[in-house]
Amino acid sequence: MNHFPDSVTLIEVGPRDGFQLETKRIPTDLKAGIICGLMDAGLRRIQVTSFVNPERVPQMADAGEVLRRLPQREDVVFTALALNTKGVERAQGAGLREIEASISASDTHSRKNAGMSLNQAIDQGKEMIRVARKSDMSVTAGIQCAFGCVYEGAIPAKRVLNMAQNFMDAGIDRLSIADTTGMANPLSVSHLLEALMPRELGVPVTLHLHDTRGLGLANVMAAMACGVTHFDTALGGMGGCPFVTAAAGNIATEDTAYLMASMNIETGVNISKVAECSKRLEKFLGKSFPGKMYRLL
Amino acid sequence: MNHFPDSVTLIEVGPRDGFQLETKRIPTDLKAGIICGLMDAGLRRIQVTSFVNPERVPQMADAGEVLRRLPQREDVVFTALALNTKGVERAQGAGLREIEASISASDTHSRKNAGMSLNQAIDQGKEMIRVARKSDMSVTAGIQCAFGCVYEGAIPAKRVLNMAQNFMDAGIDRLSIADTTGMANPLSVSHLLEALMPRELGVPVTLHLHDTRGLGLANVMAAMACGVTHFDTALGGMGGCPFVTAAAGNIATEDTAYLMASMNIETGVNISKVAECSKRLEKFLGKSFPGKMYRLL
Repeated sequence: MNHFPDSVTLIEVGPRDGFQLETKRIPTDLKAGIICGLMDAGLRRIQVTSFVNPERVPQMADAGEVLRRLPQREDVVFTALALNTKGVERAQGAGLREIEASISASDTHSRKNAGMSLNQAIDQGKEMIRVARKSDMSVTAGIQCAFGCVYEGAIPAKRVLNMAQNFMDAGIDRLSIADTTGMANPLSVSHLLEALMPRELGVPVTLHLHDTRGLGLANVMAAMACGVTHFDTALGGMGGCPFVTAAAGNIATEDTAYLMASMNIETGVNISKVAECSKRLEKFLGKSFPGKMYRLL
Repeated sequence: MNHFPDSVTLIEVGPRDGFQLETKRIPTDLKAGIICGLMDAGLRRIQVTSFVNPERVPQMADAGEVLRRLPQREDVVFTALALNTKGVERAQGAGLREIEASISASDTHSRKNAGMSLNQAIDQGKEMIRVARKSDMSVTAGIQCAFGCVYEGAIPAKRVLNMAQNFMDAGIDRLSIADTTGMANPLSVSHLLEALMPRELGVPVTLHLHDTRGLGLANVMAAMACGVTHFDTALGGMGGCPFVTAAAGNIATEDTAYLMASMNIETGVNISKVAECSKRLEKFLGKSFPGKMYRLL
């Protein structure tokens, strides 16, 4: 068997990647309550919202208000997502100390979603990093669609490596490689990460996986074998696609934490307490999530 | 990355392990139609029913009738499950050429479900093998709860190895190691299979996995790294637990075939055609299955 790490960091992204797709508006108090529940469950890095266009993503319109309702704890880091400099500036104004500047590796996806070519998007990414650094914010550079895109199919690993180098040169604190549409598989994960991980990055690499095609935890196994120790996860496996009934979303925090626990890999996450948050949301939203473990607890 | 096989055999068990838990009676014609659809999708080994007590499992009461409605094809093997010699004899009477004689590795589970101690169950297993061999049936010995049991927790690998040796000595054609309640994890899979696979078994070893806790395909990865090339799967991931809402069942045929295809591992399975069968059943049963891929096709 491969050598696996002794401990892994799970970064909770449900309050951003999970909530944003829900059409029913989640009250700000409930959002803050869930985030507090996740802190209580041992999660120490939580992506709490995104600073994006509220007309395009109404669920995230209360981004600043969510932040104001959260207690500050020295051992917990809150992050948020931004897609352009305006988002970074709004996050700064709201007092956030860490931002994820997210850019797509797909030219077509970038043009359709952000009205920019790939090269313009890379420049936008570097500009976001510059703006964030000016005010001493920590920055994660997020590369969306790193393993494939519904428009372009597979994305060449070389392109992702080139983008990563660009963002590294601009000065980032973390790098996040995202399988936005669940198109990664153990081979493509190994291929990209075996090329990326031995580089002298000097920053932690996070893998952001979706379970759309059921390969989420198989990809986690492949990634850990390459040395990855940071994974984005969402409570209950929220974050499915709005166009496919009950489509799976992000890999579930409970399931991933259970995988780690079963392999004696430390996460510090109390699975039952995360499941309580999932059930509270499930009740409010009137729907089941794709995660497995939370149902059993 | 580990060395993975060039091809893998998926053994479809949905018509047995999936159907048996459905409370709505599936008409015999629909069962036969689904099985024909699975053959058409390229599955070459299909567990079509079980010869068990119809009072305990009413859905399987038409076992013989299902067999009678199936076309015989030289390149397709039908199997069925039996839990005692009476079942084996009924299968013989129905003209079946291959049987899976299934015994639990958990003493408590065996006492509760079959009214036998573990040692009595092992004797029963050997007797089933003897009866089957008398009439030239091929025999798979199936070891249930090999990775754990809801009553006893983890099951010692040594016990499973001992049972396997007993059944090997009695003369079997195949061995199936079953994670009946989804309690296996990549470590326990590696632990048991690293001990089992190097033995001079002389017969193929199948792994029967459930995705109850979300680790199904992560366990497949660990098993392939140990040299396992035969997996039981069920269309749509049917076969959940009747006591947990929408609990996951067997690993899904479509998802497992997709994992293999993504890793360039040959299965001969047409995923879209399997998904058509899942959707047909989904419509009839009025419920969704836990599998991911079939929803996307």
